[in-house]
Amino acid sequence: MPQFLNANAPDFESRFAALLGAKREDSPDVDAVVADIIADVRARGDAAVIELTAKFDRLELTPDTLRFSDADIDAFCAEVNDEDRAALELAAERIRAYHARQMPEDALWTEETGAMLGWRWTPVSAAGLYVPGGLASYPSSVLMNAIPAKVAGVERLAIVVPTPDGVANPLVLLAARLAGVDEVYRIGGAQAVAALAYGTDTIAPVDKITGPGNAFVAAAKRRVFGKVGIDMIAGPSEILVIADKDNNPDWIALDLLSQAEHDESAQSILITDDEDFGQAVAQAVDKRLETLERRDIAGVSWRDYGAVITVPDLKTAADLSNRVAPEHLELCVADPDALAEDITHAGAIFLGQYTPEAIGDYVGGPNHVLPTARSARFSSGLSVMDFIKRTTLSKMTPEALRAIGPAAETLAISESLEAHGLSVRARLDGLNK
Amino acid sequence: MPQFLNANAPDFESRFAALLGAKREDSPDVDAVVADIIADVRARGDAAVIELTAKFDRLELTPDTLRFSDADIDAFCAEVNDEDRAALELAAERIRAYHARQMPEDALWTEETGAMLGWRWTPVSAAGLYVPGGLASYPSSVLMNAIPAKVAGVERLAIVVPTPDGVANPLVLLAARLAGVDEVYRIGGAQAVAALAYGTDTIAPVDKITGPGNAFVAAAKRRVFGKVGIDMIAGPSEILVIADKDNNPDWIALDLLSQAEHDESAQSILITDDEDFGQAVAQAVDKRLETLERRDIAGVSWRDYGAVITVPDLKTAADLSNRVAPEHLELCVADPDALAEDITHAGAIFLGQYTPEAIGDYVGGPNHVLPTARSARFSSGLSVMDFIKRTTLSKMTPEALRAIGPAAETLAISESLEAHGLSVRARLDGLNK
Repeated sequence: MPQFLNANAPDFESRFAALLGAKREDSPDVDAVVADIIADVRARGDAAVIELTAKFDRLELTPDTLRFSDADIDAFCAEVNDEDRAALELAAERIRAYHARQMPEDALWTEETGAMLGWRWTPVSAAGLYVPGGLASYPSSVLMNAIPAKVAGVERLAIVVPTPDGVANPLVLLAARLAGVDEVYRIGGAQAVAALAYGTDTIAPVDKITGPGNAFVAAAKRRVFGKVGIDMIAGPSEILVIADKDNNPDWIALDLLSQAEHDESAQSILITDDEDFGQAVAQAVDKRLETLERRDIAGVSWRDYGAVITVPDLKTAADLSNRVAPEHLELCVADPDALAEDITHAGAIFLGQYTPEAIGDYVGGPNHVLPTARSARFSSGLSVMDFIKRTTLSKMTPEALRAIGPAAETLAISESLEAHGLSVRARLDGLNK
Repeated sequence: MPQFLNANAPDFESRFAALLGAKREDSPDVDAVVADIIADVRARGDAAVIELTAKFDRLELTPDTLRFSDADIDAFCAEVNDEDRAALELAAERIRAYHARQMPEDALWTEETGAMLGWRWTPVSAAGLYVPGGLASYPSSVLMNAIPAKVAGVERLAIVVPTPDGVANPLVLLAARLAGVDEVYRIGGAQAVAALAYGTDTIAPVDKITGPGNAFVAAAKRRVFGKVGIDMIAGPSEILVIADKDNNPDWIALDLLSQAEHDESAQSILITDDEDFGQAVAQAVDKRLETLERRDIAGVSWRDYGAVITVPDLKTAADLSNRVAPEHLELCVADPDALAEDITHAGAIFLGQYTPEAIGDYVGGPNHVLPTARSARFSSGLSVMDFIKRTTLSKMTPEALRAIGPAAETLAISESLEAHGLSVRARLDGLNK
């Protein structure tokens, strides 16, 4: 049974605060192990990567087989059936079209003094993408990480994907090919992150690493951060659905379950202005849980972290949602566009009853890598912005330097940075000669 | 003496690689101490902050005096002389004008199927800015951090600035006022970061923390990352100057020294296509070092990390610069705009001989918080983007769901996420009834 809360109840504030504050994940402390693995890969390169892959993935590799050859990838791609291929192609095309619109423009302008100011965007030269192996090896995640990188103009994009016992997922390799990935390696874990960050004889180092992974991968990404850029460390994810009574309870139940089936620590919350509708959805969830393949996982998530909250009006629903700052937010109400105006913190908004969150996971176009665990308060989903960086530009004329240089000198002196001031003063004196 | 390198010398590659790889900073490991301080502030709030401030800053505070009152700030602002005030006002105005242009636009478009896609930008609700106390208490940094936040629309902006022995810097308080800062607290160190991240009875928690600090502050920011957003952890900074022989060696020497005077671990590199000019600059540096106030710091930086590199042509200079990915890059050449086209990685570019880097530190307009330690390969300087986040929007029509829903269902099934597929299928079936 999920929690049932009512915004008008006297104990609501304390119960809602408890819901917000619930710690849903205890990551094991693997930092010491990961530090050793990274040091080993830095010291011994390919040899360390190969030994660790034999140990953890039960797979014997050589420097020549660390990387999937083009022929390997061809063969795997040929295994994919036409329906899956067409679906992946549609997804890739739509994700590419959406992200192409995200490329920001350069700017350059001239002030009255003749001074020129502006900025320029340039891509990261080389990026690495971690793709989990085994059960959580999702081809959709390959598309969602790789396509923004390629749209951004990343020249060299490498994937690492562990293949325990040598088993690879053909759809992952097809997704890599559709996304234009340049190199795919049969390695995973902290050793793969270390190889991408520091390089080996076989694997050239990259500048940025993105993609989800287990506790070892997350700890490794934290450790190499600074040497390379990383994306956010993903936490347990969540969906919040705001729905009025004019919805099919079964549809809403399935949306809640599509989050819950990911992970026992996922969280699904329904906020409704109709208490009976909330009860109907909870019943629909129970009914679907009887037959769902992943009912064990989804059942635990719904029981431990699920919640149905009744509110007096939709404005209150939006206010509560902003306090949650959910990764995914569905607005299943008569006028979702109007309600969206009240939303200040959310990773992605799905408007109206015909936009189940699963559309966004695969084919909608927006990215499905989104800020989890309330971090939508301060961060955004993955985008082309993660693979480009801005260089600011300034060019003073003599006239401009005369106009603003003295203020720079004054401030430098006030901060006791004499050479700063002199670098301006020497030029001003030179101009006045 | 700095290092002298020549790109045509046989040992150049190994020497340049060593220059790139030089570890310029050993941060003391203060993580355990910082963990205790954060736990203490979380447990005891104001009482812990007050005790730690008494201990580290020799300052007795109460919950009522933790925060500077408006009258306090008025009094400090009145101490600032007219010249300093005018310089700060000019800087604030120019920084605001530059950053106002960075605000990205929302997007919303409709596809042929009637599906609507897009995104919206919203500001972080509350941000905290760390300002170091004592010697490194720079009013310019207050402007550079606070103005982008206010331009972004951050509603509540709090500053923490330690005042050891009760000594405050009037210019810092004036900068805070000019930037529109809402709250200023007399606290610093890891305890201030913890108070901003977790809140106390007196200090409401924020969503994002930016600003420079010592090893304790950096460790605290790393620890609270995830609970709140943080900016980059700044490393030792650097300047790279590409200059041809048609420059005043003294001007270039002062630019190199304006980096070196910051910190013994700062790095200043000159790349020139004229060996004699390089020697002349090195001599000019030595001459300036005889009298410079901060000659001890600047001299150590120049001796340990300074370099003068002679190259056969400016294209080679650009290529080497891209390998350094400098925080600051000056292009003091006949056609700096053309050379800038060859630059792929740099935090900020200063074009032409009338644009000393110090202009950018104070009054140019672009931000002076820039990626250090080669991180311009994958990251950008501080901007309004650090204080806003993007929410993606999707709205399917029945027609759009019919068009792309089946592909989502296919991919969900291929990833064994049954509820995802069912959430689409149930709607498609409903539409077909």
